[in-house]
Parts: sequence; C-alpha cells; structure tokens
Amino acid sequence: MSGTRIETDSLGEIEVPADAYWGAQTQRSIENFPFPRQERMPIRLIHGLAAVKQAAARVNGIHGLDPEIAAAIEKAANAVRTGEYDNQFPLTIWQTGSGTQSNMNVNEVIAGVANEAIYGTRGGKYPVHPNDHVNRGQSSNDSFPTAMHISAALALEVELFPALEQLHDALADKAQQWKSIVKIGRTHLQDATPLTLGQEFSGYAAQLVAARDRVEAVLPRLLKLAQGGTAVGTGLNAPENFGEHIAKEISKITGLKFNTASNKFAELAAHDTMVELSGALNTLAVSLTKIANDIRLLGSGPRSGLGEIDLPSNEPGSSIMPGKVNPTQCEMLTMVAAQVIGNHQAVTVGGLQGHLELNVFKPLIGANVLRSIEIISIGMSSFSERCVEGLEANEARIRELVDNSLMLVTALAPVIGYDKAAAIAKYAHKTGQTLRASALELGLVDEKTYDTHVRPENMVGNHS
Amino acid sequence: MSGTRIETDSLGEIEVPADAYWGAQTQRSIENFPFPRQERMPIRLIHGLAAVKQAAARVNGIHGLDPEIAAAIEKAANAVRTGEYDNQFPLTIWQTGSGTQSNMNVNEVIAGVANEAIYGTRGGKYPVHPNDHVNRGQSSNDSFPTAMHISAALALEVELFPALEQLHDALADKAQQWKSIVKIGRTHLQDATPLTLGQEFSGYAAQLVAARDRVEAVLPRLLKLAQGGTAVGTGLNAPENFGEHIAKEISKITGLKFNTASNKFAELAAHDTMVELSGALNTLAVSLTKIANDIRLLGSGPRSGLGEIDLPSNEPGSSIMPGKVNPTQCEMLTMVAAQVIGNHQAVTVGGLQGHLELNVFKPLIGANVLRSIEIISIGMSSFSERCVEGLEANEARIRELVDNSLMLVTALAPVIGYDKAAAIAKYAHKTGQTLRASALELGLVDEKTYDTHVRPENMVGNHS
Amino acid sequence: MSGTRIETDSLGEIEVPADAYWGAQTQRSIENFPFPRQERMPIRLIHGLAAVKQAAARVNGIHGLDPEIAAAIEKAANAVRTGEYDNQFPLTIWQTGSGTQSNMNVNEVIAGVANEAIYGTRGGKYPVHPNDHVNRGQSSNDSFPTAMHISAALALEVELFPALEQLHDALADKAQQWKSIVKIGRTHLQDATPLTLGQEFSGYAAQLVAARDRVEAVLPRLLKLAQGGTAVGTGLNAPENFGEHIAKEISKITGLKFNTASNKFAELAAHDTMVELSGALNTLAVSLTKIANDIRLLGSGPRSGLGEIDLPSNEPGSSIMPGKVNPTQCEMLTMVAAQVIGNHQAVTVGGLQGHLELNVFKPLIGANVLRSIEIISIGMSSFSERCVEGLEANEARIRELVDNSLMLVTALAPVIGYDKAAAIAKYAHKTGQTLRASALELGLVDEKTYDTHVRPENMVGNHS
Amino acid sequence: MSGTRIETDSLGEIEVPADAYWGAQTQRSIENFPFPRQERMPIRLIHGLAAVKQAAARVNGIHGLDPEIAAAIEKAANAVRTGEYDNQFPLTIWQTGSGTQSNMNVNEVIAGVANEAIYGTRGGKYPVHPNDHVNRGQSSNDSFPTAMHISAALALEVELFPALEQLHDALADKAQQWKSIVKIGRTHLQDATPLTLGQEFSGYAAQLVAARDRVEAVLPRLLKLAQGGTAVGTGLNAPENFGEHIAKEISKITGLKFNTASNKFAELAAHDTMVELSGALNTLAVSLTKIANDIRLLGSGPRSGLGEIDLPSNEPGSSIMPGKVNPTQCEMLTMVAAQVIGNHQAVTVGGLQGHLELNVFKPLIGANVLRSIEIISIGMSSFSERCVEGLEANEARIRELVDNSLMLVTALAPVIGYDKAAAIAKYAHKTGQTLRASALELGLVDEKTYDTHVRPENMVGNHS
Repeated sequence: MSGTRIETDSLGEIEVPADAYWGAQTQRSIENFPFPRQERMPIRLIHGLAAVKQAAARVNGIHGLDPEIAAAIEKAANAVRTGEYDNQFPLTIWQTGSGTQSNMNVNEVIAGVANEAIYGTRGGKYPVHPNDHVNRGQSSNDSFPTAMHISAALALEVELFPALEQLHDALADKAQQWKSIVKIGRTHLQDATPLTLGQEFSGYAAQLVAARDRVEAVLPRLLKLAQGGTAVGTGLNAPENFGEHIAKEISKITGLKFNTASNKFAELAAHDTMVELSGALNTLAVSLTKIANDIRLLGSGPRSGLGEIDLPSNEPGSSIMPGKVNPTQCEMLTMVAAQVIGNHQAVTVGGLQGHLELNVFKPLIGANVLRSIEIISIGMSSFSERCVEGLEANEARIRELVDNSLMLVTALAPVIGYDKAAAIAKYAHKTGQTLRASALELGLVDEKTYDTHVRPENMVGNHS
Repeated sequence: MSGTRIETDSLGEIEVPADAYWGAQTQRSIENFPFPRQERMPIRLIHGLAAVKQAAARVNGIHGLDPEIAAAIEKAANAVRTGEYDNQFPLTIWQTGSGTQSNMNVNEVIAGVANEAIYGTRGGKYPVHPNDHVNRGQSSNDSFPTAMHISAALALEVELFPALEQLHDALADKAQQWKSIVKIGRTHLQDATPLTLGQEFSGYAAQLVAARDRVEAVLPRLLKLAQGGTAVGTGLNAPENFGEHIAKEISKITGLKFNTASNKFAELAAHDTMVELSGALNTLAVSLTKIANDIRLLGSGPRSGLGEIDLPSNEPGSSIMPGKVNPTQCEMLTMVAAQVIGNHQAVTVGGLQGHLELNVFKPLIGANVLRSIEIISIGMSSFSERCVEGLEANEARIRELVDNSLMLVTALAPVIGYDKAAAIAKYAHKTGQTLRASALELGLVDEKTYDTHVRPENMVGNHS
Repeated sequence: MSGTRIETDSLGEIEVPADAYWGAQTQRSIENFPFPRQERMPIRLIHGLAAVKQAAARVNGIHGLDPEIAAAIEKAANAVRTGEYDNQFPLTIWQTGSGTQSNMNVNEVIAGVANEAIYGTRGGKYPVHPNDHVNRGQSSNDSFPTAMHISAALALEVELFPALEQLHDALADKAQQWKSIVKIGRTHLQDATPLTLGQEFSGYAAQLVAARDRVEAVLPRLLKLAQGGTAVGTGLNAPENFGEHIAKEISKITGLKFNTASNKFAELAAHDTMVELSGALNTLAVSLTKIANDIRLLGSGPRSGLGEIDLPSNEPGSSIMPGKVNPTQCEMLTMVAAQVIGNHQAVTVGGLQGHLELNVFKPLIGANVLRSIEIISIGMSSFSERCVEGLEANEARIRELVDNSLMLVTALAPVIGYDKAAAIAKYAHKTGQTLRASALELGLVDEKTYDTHVRPENMVGNHS
Repeated sequence: MSGTRIETDSLGEIEVPADAYWGAQTQRSIENFPFPRQERMPIRLIHGLAAVKQAAARVNGIHGLDPEIAAAIEKAANAVRTGEYDNQFPLTIWQTGSGTQSNMNVNEVIAGVANEAIYGTRGGKYPVHPNDHVNRGQSSNDSFPTAMHISAALALEVELFPALEQLHDALADKAQQWKSIVKIGRTHLQDATPLTLGQEFSGYAAQLVAARDRVEAVLPRLLKLAQGGTAVGTGLNAPENFGEHIAKEISKITGLKFNTASNKFAELAAHDTMVELSGALNTLAVSLTKIANDIRLLGSGPRSGLGEIDLPSNEPGSSIMPGKVNPTQCEMLTMVAAQVIGNHQAVTVGGLQGHLELNVFKPLIGANVLRSIEIISIGMSSFSERCVEGLEANEARIRELVDNSLMLVTALAPVIGYDKAAAIAKYAHKTGQTLRASALELGLVDEKTYDTHVRPENMVGNHS
C-alpha cells in the first residue's frame, strides 16, 4: 500500500495506490465524493455488473472481440462476480446518478486483473482496455439498470425467499401445534369471541404466503433487462440482438431466467419495476410489523400483560430489573420493517424524478432495494430461529382468560335471545363475577343449558 | 327536514331527522365524530357494503330468513348499491376503525327503506331489523373489508383501467405518428445521441403497459373476500360455507369474479392487499410524474426552453404576461401523483398498526385507496384528452437542435477513432461552430466521409 | 339556475350559469378539470385570497385606484372573506399548479359582487375588472402563496391551538387527579418498576406542551408573506413597498402579525415553510398516535387485557357481542394521525419539485396542510371531550397488578444484593407465587425487612 | 486475535475474542443479531454514550463511588468518546429497541479498558464492573436517549452547520457576483418576465438561511436530556438531582449547553424531538433538491438545453460520447436528499410506535437521524466546493434568451394597453420574429417608445 502509480483518463493523470486494481476514473470518484466507508455501493450490485461484463465478453467474442482478450475478461469478471475482489470497490452510493463511476470501477478492476494475468502488470489499459473491451457494446445507462435487476433478483432468490419460507414454516408449525388451544379473541384490543391459538398463527402464516405471491408477481418485470439500449435506448454502437444474447448468457451465469426488455427507452429513463419491488417489500414490512407486534403483545407480562405465550430468553434483561425478558427479536424486526418502509420512500422519491432519456437516481434506488432485501431477510431468519421456533403457549393463562370472558355469552344468544344474553354479560361485568354465576343468579338460564352451550371449543369453527 | 323522530339502540333513545332513513347508531356517530361534509366516507364503499347486504339477503333466504323480508332487503340494498340513496350516508371516514358505524348506517338505511316499502313508515326496525335481518350472518369485521375489496376492484374496473388505456393509447398514437422525427436525446439533462420523438413516447406507452400489469397482478388477492369470518375469523354465527355463497352472489351482482379468502383471520386482522394495491398506485404515480414532467420539459419555452413540442392552450395564461401558455394539465397530473404517493404513506401507516384479531384502520385504508384511484383516473383521462392528444411536434426546432448537436460525433468514432472524434467535439464546443465546420477545419475528416457517417437518422436503431 | 349568460376571456366567449358570480376563467377551469365536489379547494384558502384582495384594495386606493372601485372591492372582498359567498368557489385542488384559477375565481367573484352592487348586474368586468382592479399589483404567483400562509396561520390560531390546549388540559387534569395512584410500569411491554398513573399521563401532557412549542417555532417564517413579488419575485408592476403595506393591512384584517418576506424569489419558487409546518404536524401526529394507543392499551379488556382504565362508552359495541365497548375515539384519532403523516408525504413530494421561479404544486401543498390542521384539530377536541375527560382509573385492578409484580424486587437489591434479589424473582416466577412468599420461603430476607422496603409507593420518585 | 477468553453474564459463560475489550452481553448480541458490518450503530452514538459515562463517573464520584474507580472510568470513557476504541463497537442498529446492548457494549468496553489499566487484565468486571460502576445511577432507557440527543446536537454543530454555512456563502457569493446579469425568468417552466441571475441565486441563499433557522428552532428541545429518569422515568436508584448534575457535566465535556428535561416520562416513552429534527432535515432535503435541480436545469446543454450557466467538469463524461459533462454533484445531492426524505419516514414510523413507558425504536431513530446529518452535510460541502463555487455564467446565451423573450412586452402594457401589447406578442410568436420587429410592423408603437420602455434591466426591480 506504500506506493502509488499513475493512471490516466481524458482529464489527465492521477495517482492510484500501487496495489489497487482500479484506474483513474475510480480514483477520481473517491476524491470527488468524500463519503465514509459505510456508504459504499452494495457489493451485490458490483457482482451484478460483473455478471454483465462476463456475459458481454462472451457475446463480444462472437462479434469480433479478440478471443484472448475476451477470455481474460470473462475470467476476471467471473472472479469479481464471485467475490474475489470485493475490496476493490471503494466507491459509495453518492456519485453520478447513472452509476457510471461504479460501472467504470468494475471495468477498470476487470481490466486491471486481466492485464495482470496477461502481462503481470496490475491495472492499466493494455492489452485489455476498460472502455474499449470490457465495456464494449455497453453504456452505464443500460449496464447499471441491468445490474440492478440482476442483483435484486438474485437477492430475492438467495436471501428473501429462503428467509420468507423459514419464517412461514415456523409460524405454520405453531399454527398446527396449537390448533386445539382455545383462547380469547380480541378485536379493537377488547375481549371478543374465542378462536384457537393455532388459528391466530395461521393468519400470520397466510400473510407470508401472500407476501411471497406479491414478490413473485414482480418477477415477470424484474427479469427483463435493459442491456442493449446503450446510451439512450436506441442501442447505438451495440451489435444487433445484443440485448437478447446478453440476457441469455446472464441467465446461464446466474441460473435465473432473464430476458431482454421489449422497450429499452422505458428501462433507462425510469425504474418503475424497482419502485414496484420496493412496494412489495413495503407490504412485507407492514405484515411483519403486525406479526411481531402481536407476538410482543401476546408475550407481554409476565404478570401484568396478556401473558398467553412465553418468548425465549436470548439475553439478560435489564441491569436494574432481575428476571426481565424483553422481546428483542420482535423489536429488531419491527425496526427493520420501519427502515424498509423508509427506504421505500427514498426509492419512490428517486423513481419519480427521472428526466427524459435517463433516470439519474440509479445508485440510490439500487442500494435501497438491496439493503431492504438484506436486512428484512436476515431479520426474518433471526426472528424465526430465535423467537418463533422457541415460543411456548402458556396454556393455564390462556384457559383462565377464555373461561373468564364475558363474550362467551354470545353462544347463549340463539337460545335465550340477545337481550337476556346481554343482561347476563352486563350483570357479570358490574358485579365482577363469572358469566356462569351471573347467569344462574339472574335465573335466565339453568345450569344444564348453560353448560351445554357455553363451550368455547364449540365456538371456534372449523376453519384452518 | 323540519321534524324529528325517535330511534333507539342499546344506549337508549335518540332524535333522528324525520326524513332520514337512518337510525340511532348512525345518528350517534354523526354526533360523536363532528367532522365536516368533505370528509365523508367514499360512496363507493357504501355501495360495496350494499352489495354485501344484497348478496347476504339472497344467501340468508336459503338459510331460513323470511322470504318477504329477504326480498325487501334485496330490493332496498340494490337501490342503495346503485346510488338511489346516496344522500343517506352522512358518516365520515373518521369513526370506529372497524367501519362498524358505516356498516350500521347501511344496515339502518336498508332496513328503513324496506320498512317504508312494506309498512309505509320510514326507518325503524320492524319488520326488517338492521342487525337481525340486514346484518344476519355478518359482522362489520368481515363486511367492511369485503366492501373494501369490492369497491376497490370495481373502481379499478370502471375508473382506472379505462383511463389507463385511454392515456396509453394517446401516447402510443403519438409514438406511431412521430416515429420518423429524429431528435436529440438527453441524458443527465445533457445533450446525448439522437433518438426519435416516437421512440421517446414509446417509452411512456411502455410504462403504462407495465402499470396495468402491475395493478392486474394484485387482482388474485384483491378478488378474495373476507366475508364469512364474522367477528374474529372463525365464522361464528354464520351458516356453513356462507363465505363461498356470498362470494358467488357478489360475483353475479358486480360482474367481477370474486372468491372467498382461504384464511379469514388474516383478512380481518390485516389489509396487506390494500397496502399492496396502494403500492401499485404509488408506482403508477411515479410513472405519471415522469411522463408529465418530460412533456412539461419538452414543451418548455416558447423561446427560452427546449420547445420541441407545443402543448394545447386550454385557458388564458398569466394576467400580466400576454400569450403565456402554461402546462396546466401536467401540473394537475403531477399534483395528483403527489397526493397518491402521500395516500400510500397513510395506507402503509394504517396497515402496519393492526392488533391481534382486527386492524382498526379500515376506513382510513379504504378511503385513501378509493380516493387515489378516483383522482388518478380522472387525472389520466383529462391529461390524455386535454394535453397528450393535442400535442404537436415543433419539427423545425427539433431539427435545429439535432443538427447542432455535438454528440453526433459519436458516429465518427468507429471511423476516425475516439480521440480524434473527441477533439472535433471539444473544438466545436470551444469555438461555438458546427461539428461539421470544426471537423473540416481540423482536417480530421473529409467532407464526404463526414456527410456519409454523421446522419442522425442512422443513429436511432430499429427499436420500436 | 335555469339560464346562462356569456362571459369572455382572451380565449373567447363561454356560457356561465346566470346566477353565478364567477366569470369565464372559473368556468373554463370547471370544464378543464372534471373532478368531483369532494375535491374542492379548502374554503380557508379562498378566504385567505379574499383577505389579500381586501388589503390590496386599501393599498391600491392610495396608489391611484378609483376610490369608488376600491371601496366596492373592499366590501365584496370582506364578504367573501367572512364566508358569505362560499358556494361561489367550485374549483378543485387539481388545477393549475400556481393556483391561478382559484385566484381568478376570487377575482371574478369579487368583481361580480361589486358590479352587482354598483349596477345591479351580476358578474362581468365593468366597472370593476377582475384583473385590472381586483388583481391590481398582484400575480397569482405571489397572491396564492400569501393566501397559503394566511390561511394556515389562521387555521393554527382558530383550530389547532385551542384543540391542542383542550387536549393538553384534559391530560394534565388526569395527571393531577391520579398523581397518587401507584401502578406497574411497562418497558418493552414487559413488567417494570412502578410509577403513578398521574406520572404516566404527565408524560402525555408534556408531549403536547412540546407540540405547541414546535408549531409555534414555525410562526416566524409562516408569518412572512410573498405578496409584492408579483410574477417572478422582482415586484414588476407593483408599487414600491407594496409588500410591506399589504402585510400591514392583512395584519389589521386578520389580527395576526404578518410581515413581508425579505426575499420574494424564495417564497414563490419554494414552499419550504409549508413543508416545515407539515413536519410539525407530522410530529404532532406521531405524539397523538402514541398517546391514543397507550390509552387503548391501558383500557384493553375488560377481563383479558390490561384493564387499568375504563373508557367512556359512547355508542353500542358489537351487534354480535353484548356489552362490548370499543375505544372508538382512539381509533378515530390514530386514523387521523395516519392521514396527517400521509399528507406530510404529499407536501414533501410537492415541495421538492419546484422549477426555477415557481413551484407549481401550490394547491396540493396548501390543501394538504389545511386538511391536516382541520382533521387533527377536530380529532383532538373530540378525543378530549369524548374520551380523555371521561376516563376512569380502575384502582382495584391497578393495585392487584402492582402488588403481584416481580419487578418490585428491585427495591431489595440495595439491601440484599442484586444476585439474591434476582433469585427471589426467578423463584417466584417459576413457582407462580408472590414475591413476598418466595422471598420468605427462600429465607433470603425476613418479613420485617421485606415489608419495610418493598413498598411501591416509595419507588415512584418525586418527579411531577 | 487467535484465542478467546471466557466472560459471563446472568445467562452464563460465553467465549469472547481474547483481544476484545467487550464482555458477555456484547458477544451475545453479536451472535443474536447476525447483520453485516455495514449495519453498525453509528460511532457518534457510541461517543455520545461514552460522554454519558464520563459525566456519570464524575457525578457518581460525589455520591460515593470509589474515587479510584471513578477516575479509571472517566479516563476510559474519555478515550472511548474521543475515538480511541472505535473498533470495539461491533454491534449493529438491529438489536434491542432500547439500545440496551450498545449501552452494555460501552459499559463493558469502558470497564474492560479501566480494568486493563488498573490490573493489566483486559475485559472482565473487576475491579470496575460494567453495571455496578460504569452504568451506576443509569438505565439504558435514559442513557440511550441522552446519547441520541448529545450525538445529534454535536453532529449538527460539527457537521451540519458548517456545511450549511459553506453552501450558503457559495450561493450568496454567486448572487452578489451576478447581481447585474439580467436573464429571462421562467414560471411553469415557461418564459416569463426577467430577473437577474443574482436574484435567482439570492433565493437559494435565502432558503438556506431559513434552513438554519429551522434546525436551530429544534435546539431548545434537543438540548434537553433524559438522563435521570432511569428505568421508567421516576429516577428510581439514581441520586437526587442526578439529571441536573449530569447535564451540567455533559455540557462541560461537549461544549454545548444541555439541560435536564423537566418531564422524563415523555423523553423515554417517545422521541418526538428526534422526529421533529428529522422533519427539519426533510425540509432541508426539499430545499436542496430544488436548488440542485435548478442548477442542473440552468446548466443543461451544452447546445440543446437552457445553457445559462456552465458547471465545472470534475470527471470524464460518457465513454461513448466525447466532451460530455454531467452535473454529477447535483445528482449526488438530489440522491442524498431522497435518502434523507426516506430516513425521515423511517424515523416517523419508529416514533409513532412507542408503548407505555418506552419507545423501543431508539437505535433506528438515532441511526437514521445521524446518517441523514452526515450525508447531507458531506453532500452540501462537496456540492459547494465542486459545483457552486465553480459555476460560470454563460452571459452571451443569457443575453440572447432575454432579448428574444416575448414576455418583455409586459413593459409596454402600461403605455399602449394590455390588448395591444398582447397583439404584439402573439404576432411575434406566430411569425417567429423579434418582439421589436413585430411591434413596429404592426405599427402599434414607434421605435423610440419601444426602445425607451422595453429594457429588461429596468424590469428587475430593486429587490436584493
């Protein structure tokens, strides 16, 4: 790291750390946008760009690119794509709105790696040139949005869907396990007619099934790639059908079924599909907030809350208050959800401000969607392992609450009429006694009738 | 309107205007939530509730409801649903979070109309009772979300899709009409390589095709109805398969293919699908902002802007500045879009705050989604008729700009090399002369070569 | 209403309803922006514009406007400002982004009223001309933002501050009334050390004191007026010091201390202060959500929730479940808060999209801020009267919960050490017995020591 | 880094890296919340917590804490606060919602450093105990919000205010420098009456003056500290007036004038002031978007845009298009602004979800506000240095546009009347000739009169 070397671009010479693979344009961006390390462009986006370069090397090889150069690019691009050079991408999100500088960072590093492989000299532009060879047939304007779609689709596949499935399964397991535990229902946070604890959790599981459907509904558009549009969407300087061929190669490389977008102008000038995907993540964040908040409510206590379920104790509670267990995984997940909702707003504001042939909020949009996918995925997985799987029903407490409920009176309404049933409930509420005692004391129903009809387990239907 | 009559509910007696069809609970809500008239619950939601009542009357008729009463309810519900009693629904959005009061407003008015039809006495509970008969087998907790889905789906069908198609067609017509007008492209708002004006507009049309796909992708979930869950999702007090039968009848009544939700707990406790739909509208708002803003930019001038297209002059411009034409339809549409984006936030915040068996932000969520659909639909239709259809290309200006463009030099790069091409562009920029004059003066290319290659119409590709 | 008359503007003739006071430009806007009645421009904004016209008539009277005309305008403007002609403003929010059409609506109606007063002929432009006389020295570009500030400041004064004070006082009364009721604290929704119910409510009251400070902090900027900038901020065609004089007159008319903005360019081109005010309302919405949600939690039950306070029963509960009382005022208020948060987003998105000398999202911004103020004010007032004032502490329940709390063990920590205290709490939790029984059974403390130290009333400090 | 040592907490033993200063609770959080490094808690918040510990050591020293231990804690806390141990804080934002784990991380590291200083053994709890000594008189519930206020106030002081001033000054310099360059105004993006380029930039400078006022208006509440409330706001286990003394010491340490909050319950249970501050940043983001977007518009071209100013060329433009200069600093700043707007939404959603005595979205809220301050500050500073300071007026272009403007006709209206002036403008627009030629050809004004009145430099007023 001690020395530097000279690299050049059309603005002239610039010093680059001697051990860096990148070139002049990357270095210039480092200096022009002095943001801290934590603001770096998500590495998934870099890998997505590398996939573009790898695919382009293959297609350009057919269209006249020197085979040795094409092979060197493909090899270097593959290494970048699979994470071997992650420390060579220092640029942050806050740069050119087209992502040109990160595209050049990838071009330069791939050229730098390839050149080192061929001649032993790190960096530079010979024999492999970042623009003429690595970027051939491309523009940042189509490569960067292509990388946005690739990286988002891969993040869904590798991060989101498995985590969603894990959490769904954990919730569905609880729904099955608890299908016979009858408990009080609560509407308006007020006591209501009963349901089973399993039914309650089946609702959460159902929300996640729908969440997956929602995200999958975006895929037909997300799997369309902008590549082939070059600078403004016309495809100037790209070979014919470049977009189709690139999409095919990227599909081979990534294992996902990409295809070329039929209208490239829209893909460069707007990122509606990323806004849409962000909306699907926003909806998922809403669902997760509901679920985590419910679990926090059901686990509130241990003595002065609802106390129907016990949450696993993952860490010591308060330093002041011994024995305190806090729903920390619920808190983590609801905070993550709030961030995803905020990120969605950033994406929306970026998405609406495109001008003519180019939207220049690309890094903002890409970074927020990828961050949302990453934190919500880790969040769901952690919540699943460290909270949902370890939940235990507090059956005694649940039984006590349902037995004391005044709303069981609803079962008497068809037998003795709504008005008499209401009188029983009101009298019990006023006197603080049980519904049964109240009913018998008022003489509105006999013991046998009461015991036959007021059975919570018969009030929960046969819904799954 | 002069007199009043007495109506009753479980809290006792209350005076109701003599000519009103509603009863005690509606009146109580008027007094408990003193918001102004402009805050009223959208009438589409009321019509949606009436559809539920109409369907329920049919199904309850099979399950033991007196046929005369069932028939009277169906007739009254149909009249409410088709708008005959729109002035009988004074309640506002800001009420009980379950929408119970609007549900009761509908129950009371239907009973009141039916009772008048049978006995000549307006209002009341005999022979048709708002709860026992009109609301039979239902709870606000399932009826209101059912009405949310019905009204939103109908609003999409009747308002949004036609307006979306109208605007798409207007944009696609322009794309076709202008497919041969070569113009300068702009990326980063800076001059770039050319495209056709038709290509530019094809991008807008493509955005709207995707917008329709996005909204349609929500339908599989939006067409699922909560009805049959009653109070907490178990279906207590509803006949078996009530949900399935209601969904079938509502499909007949509305002409849309509804079906019953497989998990009712999720449908009462959360409104994820409404959040999702709101997200699709948010994405559409983002697309429309881009399109309207581009048209505003292209039409800027008349002398000191881009001036490539002329917008129709729908009203006088400034009272100070004669001859001023403002892009008022663009302004209306971008304001509407901002409102839709804001409404999406309200829906998101409401959606995430459900508690256990019930989300109590139902009126907020329903009202915002319906308002968004209504204003964005009228906005698109008006923008289409009063702006897009009347756009005219300013061909002389377009030609002048493209001819003067320095970026045409890109076409020389493959012939004389990138560096020489750059030198020509820079010299032309510095001296202010044309690219051609600059090229010839520098002696970097001969006249014939220049004229052969620098032809904008050959630089726009063959993309649609 | 039967007939029509002809009015004209620079686009030509147009039919106007015979009984309308408005003229051609208003009529044209009705036809060009076919939105429904519920979307009308808030009447407060119209009144604000009328205040501008009234003040301008006075100032123009000094600068050469015919005294009779000036007097007629002032009289008509005053009538419009005080609500006599509210039915003459049919235009909606969705129009020109400068609000020009509502400005012209006000100009035309004032001229129409003045002309009728002078000659008996409704409408028209003689002798009082909407532009030359009513709009003299003004442009929509400065009048409309001036009206935005006037109307928002008045809405704060007349609606928001009184409602905020009412709710603050109701909460502070409860804090005082309940200052000696010791209850369990809850952090992370888990049992914690005690505080008084009064302390809990003192926190809510303190939030509202800060809320008022927050809104008042905006006033120095909100009381600055754009008037005097005319079309682009230079003040072209307005007399010298017009802005200063107008601000003085508007202050006399409204009773609020307005002054002229020192830089008019910023006031026309951006509405940062409205965005700021919207942010203050957003913060208030956040505070109110917390407060209303806490009250909903504390009042949850009656048997299976926290049950520490009882909410007033304003309307019948569920039609299925007798005796059910729902926290409907809390639900209304949290829905209103969600809308205010959404409106803030709309205002933000509108605020950021100004171009050069003019922001053309003025009606959107004005309408959302005014709607937020109105609904949050009514919401607070109603919540205060129909919920907070009627709250009752359920002292028996509160005492039971605090006595059972394991967290009282904290008081023993300084006496027997943290570890032994923890052992007592854990043993009590495991065995389900009281803390006292557990302590004595474990022999870690004697009866007297326990009873001396474990006294919740000594654990609540002396904070107000 | 090779080995590990054993640390313990109430859950038992856990392995910690041998060279780490942290203890068991930090280690447990690392394992329980497996988020990547980029998600780490902002270091400013850690420094804020260290300031609390340093101040507490001083105050506790007076209230009986062993002087040697107090001194060791103060020294270690000071080292942490000034950045010596920044690599010892691996925990992420996504943890317990009270920030307890980061509070414990600070407690443990300070104890670990102090213990090493005293006995030579890194980490551990002897003689300095993380809870009993470092955390003495505190709870995470009051320390963390105190650190939120300290770190935000310092970030404003050190980052935001200087950057705001820098950008203001750069804009004000341009306003001064360009005060005599008359240019065309644009409203609705359409040609309007003239103003000077200096006036246009004076509007931007005025926006930033107001921005500073807005942020400063938050300080009275931001400078209030929660410390002294301990677990639920009552101050249990803290010495009397602990809050007052701590605030005094923190003021000494930081140089800012903090004081203790009068109501601690509100400070723990809600973070309204952080939401308010986020709202002020949101407004600033709105202002910056307007300014940067205007500069992008004014600099659009070089030949087919407005082209009134030239932006500095900081990096090569497109790899395809030679000579292209993109407004990259504008793009960076508008992306940063969109992020700040999104972060504001996250803060709002976190702020509204507090429950009873504690808001458990503290890390989310703190991290978003600090990130917003950091990126908007760097963004403004970079935009100032690399864009605004280097702007150059393109006077020839500006003069050409203003001379061609039809809106100059407004100056003739007082002389020949509005109608004749309008006729001249319309005729010029139709025929494409100059206003002057049109006026003379129509014979509506003589040469001398025209030349006397139509002088743009007389139409720009004398506003600053």
